[in-house]
Amino acid sequence: MLSLSFIKEIEKIIGRENVLTGEADRQNYAYDAAVLPPVVPGLVVRPTRTDQLGPLIQKCYEEGIPITIRGSGTNLSGGTIPDSTDAVIILTNSLDRILEINEEEMYAVVEPGVITCDLAAAVAARGLFYPPDPGSMSVSTMGGNIAENSGGLRGLKYGTTKKYVMGLEVLTETGEIMKTGACGRGCEYGYNLTELLVASEGTLALTSKAVLKLVTPPKASKAMMAIFPEVKRASQAVAGIIAAHVVPCTLEFMDNATINYVEDYVNIGLPRDAAAILLIEVDGHPAQVADEAVSVEKVLKDSGALEVVVAKDAAEKTRIWEARRVAIPALARCRPTLMLEDATVPRSKIPAMLEALDKIAARHHVTIGTFGHAGDGNLHPSILCDKRDKEEFSRVERAVDDLFNVALELGGTLSGEHGIGTSKKKWLELETSKGTLEYMRRMRSAFDPKKLLNASKIVSL
Amino acid sequence: MLSLSFIKEIEKIIGRENVLTGEADRQNYAYDAAVLPPVVPGLVVRPTRTDQLGPLIQKCYEEGIPITIRGSGTNLSGGTIPDSTDAVIILTNSLDRILEINEEEMYAVVEPGVITCDLAAAVAARGLFYPPDPGSMSVSTMGGNIAENSGGLRGLKYGTTKKYVMGLEVLTETGEIMKTGACGRGCEYGYNLTELLVASEGTLALTSKAVLKLVTPPKASKAMMAIFPEVKRASQAVAGIIAAHVVPCTLEFMDNATINYVEDYVNIGLPRDAAAILLIEVDGHPAQVADEAVSVEKVLKDSGALEVVVAKDAAEKTRIWEARRVAIPALARCRPTLMLEDATVPRSKIPAMLEALDKIAARHHVTIGTFGHAGDGNLHPSILCDKRDKEEFSRVERAVDDLFNVALELGGTLSGEHGIGTSKKKWLELETSKGTLEYMRRMRSAFDPKKLLNASKIVSL
Repeated sequence: MLSLSFIKEIEKIIGRENVLTGEADRQNYAYDAAVLPPVVPGLVVRPTRTDQLGPLIQKCYEEGIPITIRGSGTNLSGGTIPDSTDAVIILTNSLDRILEINEEEMYAVVEPGVITCDLAAAVAARGLFYPPDPGSMSVSTMGGNIAENSGGLRGLKYGTTKKYVMGLEVLTETGEIMKTGACGRGCEYGYNLTELLVASEGTLALTSKAVLKLVTPPKASKAMMAIFPEVKRASQAVAGIIAAHVVPCTLEFMDNATINYVEDYVNIGLPRDAAAILLIEVDGHPAQVADEAVSVEKVLKDSGALEVVVAKDAAEKTRIWEARRVAIPALARCRPTLMLEDATVPRSKIPAMLEALDKIAARHHVTIGTFGHAGDGNLHPSILCDKRDKEEFSRVERAVDDLFNVALELGGTLSGEHGIGTSKKKWLELETSKGTLEYMRRMRSAFDPKKLLNASKIVSL
Repeated sequence: MLSLSFIKEIEKIIGRENVLTGEADRQNYAYDAAVLPPVVPGLVVRPTRTDQLGPLIQKCYEEGIPITIRGSGTNLSGGTIPDSTDAVIILTNSLDRILEINEEEMYAVVEPGVITCDLAAAVAARGLFYPPDPGSMSVSTMGGNIAENSGGLRGLKYGTTKKYVMGLEVLTETGEIMKTGACGRGCEYGYNLTELLVASEGTLALTSKAVLKLVTPPKASKAMMAIFPEVKRASQAVAGIIAAHVVPCTLEFMDNATINYVEDYVNIGLPRDAAAILLIEVDGHPAQVADEAVSVEKVLKDSGALEVVVAKDAAEKTRIWEARRVAIPALARCRPTLMLEDATVPRSKIPAMLEALDKIAARHHVTIGTFGHAGDGNLHPSILCDKRDKEEFSRVERAVDDLFNVALELGGTLSGEHGIGTSKKKWLELETSKGTLEYMRRMRSAFDPKKLLNASKIVSL
């Protein structure tokens, strides 16, 4: 229970109207998009200026109050669930100014609460391009994208958020401002503190400002859908495209279950009988796009695609991407709970992973719809269930265990873009090593000696 | 003075023949390519297997012996100069195996002593491409490239070494192996330990293995040289090319002094009267290359280039790049000492930087030849002098001070690709902040509590 005097001190810093103490308000911030037990925070605060972040963190830290920073709470691994019922949630949503878009040097400076798609639109209006496009981009914040290193459909060619963060302004636990990175192309020397902070899930410092790299938009693009009679042929096609030295902007996989859930939901004419489809977009110079489209089509047909539908116009392209964009809501509406994972394997291991997923579904009698960023090996096996049904949910948990074990056995990784949070902590040692976890703990203790900064996340202290 | 018993212990680990104790041997490792006072190490050891690195570091650390790891010593900021006359130099040159080139997943695994151009050639032979091409690549090691985050002529489009390091195996101070990174595309979650270790100049751990990303080689390229009557027009052209949304693979600048030194040296027909030349290469899809070459030529002419020479064949292209590649030896042979700096400014500030360099040269009566990666704003102002002439060298040191102060005033950075080492430490706080240095010290203390790992480098402990 937080003391009244502490709350008064916080009110002095950010104004009474920005301090939420009511039960109902606090309940709203007890969970995020991960399937995990809620924890109601002790206090929710909404700073309206970034210069309030320093005094806020300093005050909480002095008093020994746990801190979790939160944007829109679209996190899929529990990174924004409070550490305890004493914790203070710091909301960044009112820190939502785009401070600068520099066309000449091609960067943008944003506050942490800027919505991803607002940034994308603002830079597009200036003829530039911010590529990361996480599924939640219409609501997610840049602070959250940076904390989780969000990916998206374009990750294969354009990389995840970390590729675009050139510099940060953060507040350390003492409330001191620390600037990382440098002009133009980020910092190229010494300790890559920017990169260290990206994906650190609010455990090292609070971000108050970010400098983001912008790039030149592609001049052309072409989207296509390939229909496969067997899952194996689809995954062979993925390997074949990479082997043909084509790097599509997007290379997505969808299994039969997902196809049918999507079709039930939006009825846009997906092939319900297909074992799998691949959705592909190549972009770049018009001539390169034309050549790559031909190469990709050849690989798809050689791999045994029954049909390749090339989008003839913008409307058809939109339809192809709508099919993929609605996959999560299409699955989510079928059962009360959707366990959306992002186990990632080397591309060459996609066939093995998909086979293993079938076996896991059968073994535990669970329904798994699989789709995702095949070009990266970053699949999203999604288990449809009801977490209130304890018997069913225990089978789901065993299936998730199996799923990560298989991914790691195949030389894969726990997360392609959703972070570790609390939900994947238990497998981290298996992927890395005891020494690596120890190294992480040592580093973290140097920055958070009192263990108050989102302390339950990534690795136990 | 190292004890005989310590030396005996080291001999047990790596064999007597790999322990160099003689004065002459040790003298060889007292300096690197930076212009700094030599420090003769206490011992030089040459492990022949990476599994010897753990016991080596453990033994030294236990005994409180300073450690500096070293590849070919081409470092330009003093990163491989021993910390004291007690220090042990660990040479990686015998750890030079390319362990794997995986064409399907597009990565290579190397030991730290692999020579950069040997890796580049080996992957090229398999139809792949490792882009970083530091000037010293014919002798520099991958371990050194990683420790310093080396760049090169292709940095503008392809980035520096850090963009290609997907994972590392390192030895911590206790001799424990730590693996960082993950399959396929590196690690996308939690603490980016790989990125933290890249550019850390041997101050956090010793690298025993690196997983490097490979890419698809460009299908075509075109090189050209533009001759300018005024420096200002050349730098306007640089900004114009970027504004035209062309990202050349390489975009190099050379001033009149450098042009003449190069011409004196290799006599390849450079325009001795030109105020400056730009050397440019665009690469990618053939049609894109053709279009970009047209765009670049237009910008060059609009900016006031007197002449644009487009390489008609491979021989002409080679000639253009030879002019640039020999810049350092051409300058270095003129006077006993070459102070080669890599102050970097935002591209839009190149004209201001070049003007400032002229003033600095005049103010301190020193000769500065300037060339470098204009597209990145990463210039190499190089002062020709004789460090044995104390009066002259004190003027040179004042000029270097002025040069970095100006670069930072222009929003620039201390290093584009040469690291901090000991030579640039004194300006680091000016670029970052006291808080940033404190943060670096805290992190470093967590990993090197006894301050033995190349301790005098980057930031004072």
